[in-house]
Amino acid sequence: MMGLILPGVLGIDHIGIAVVDLDSAVKWHEEVLGLKTVHVQEIKSDSVKEVLMQVGDCNGIRNNIQLLSPTNQDSPVGRFLSKHGEGIHHIGYRVADCAQALRHCVTMGVDLIDTEPRLGSAGATVAFIHPKGAFGTLIELVEKVETLSTANGH
Amino acid sequence: MMGLILPGVLGIDHIGIAVVDLDSAVKWHEEVLGLKTVHVQEIKSDSVKEVLMQVGDCNGIRNNIQLLSPTNQDSPVGRFLSKHGEGIHHIGYRVADCAQALRHCVTMGVDLIDTEPRLGSAGATVAFIHPKGAFGTLIELVEKVETLSTANGH
Repeated sequence: MMGLILPGVLGIDHIGIAVVDLDSAVKWHEEVLGLKTVHVQEIKSDSVKEVLMQVGDCNGIRNNIQLLSPTNQDSPVGRFLSKHGEGIHHIGYRVADCAQALRHCVTMGVDLIDTEPRLGSAGATVAFIHPKGAFGTLIELVEKVETLSTANGH
Repeated sequence: MMGLILPGVLGIDHIGIAVVDLDSAVKWHEEVLGLKTVHVQEIKSDSVKEVLMQVGDCNGIRNNIQLLSPTNQDSPVGRFLSKHGEGIHHIGYRVADCAQALRHCVTMGVDLIDTEPRLGSAGATVAFIHPKGAFGTLIELVEKVETLSTANGH
């Protein structure tokens, strides 16, 4: 685990962007920025459909843009769109161990949305930090199995 | 230039976050997320002071968080803070050639803030795409000399 810093942040996993029309947003990011779709999923528990588009690959940690569109207006992304309109919604930091990173946040007195790690998209283990007290920035801590195997392989 | 996609997006250069108190924001990102300051600069033409904090290193492209605080309220970041409060301000995509990426955007009919590349922080060449028509997302295209030398070196 050489090179890991205290809360175990390994890199940027994704930047979440809330959009109304997922197909138009995907087409724009393909045609204007040249990004490629790597994953599509509906996350029923969050009433959201997501498309991950890869930007870079950082020693096995893919940097993605995560386009998010609500399937129900009464959902976190639906309420964000109603209040703010389309735009950047959150930063997903890749961490080695979501539970450990959360414990570090508790020690530091950080306001949390999720007090326990939970299942995110594509089998990831995730937890959200509240934007209040985090400079208005909604932060997701993202643990993925592929990170651990990459970390072990280096 | 193997692996380059059409507009030449190489990776995520930085995520810009607008904050009121730069010192508190740096301290929080150090203590909670373990990020390290790699660059500090006042950009007088934009009336902003920035601190870059490294998150990951993506084949020579550092992923950074760019904390931004205005030195003058009547400035782009000052007006953003007045209107929206603290939060994620923009995405900086690293590109191989800012002028070429801009020409691609013009061809695609994208609304631009900068119609010509200009000097950004730390000697970078940058241009901004307007959030209108880009799903509410302010996008900066960032060309840096270190990218080219890394690209040539591989």
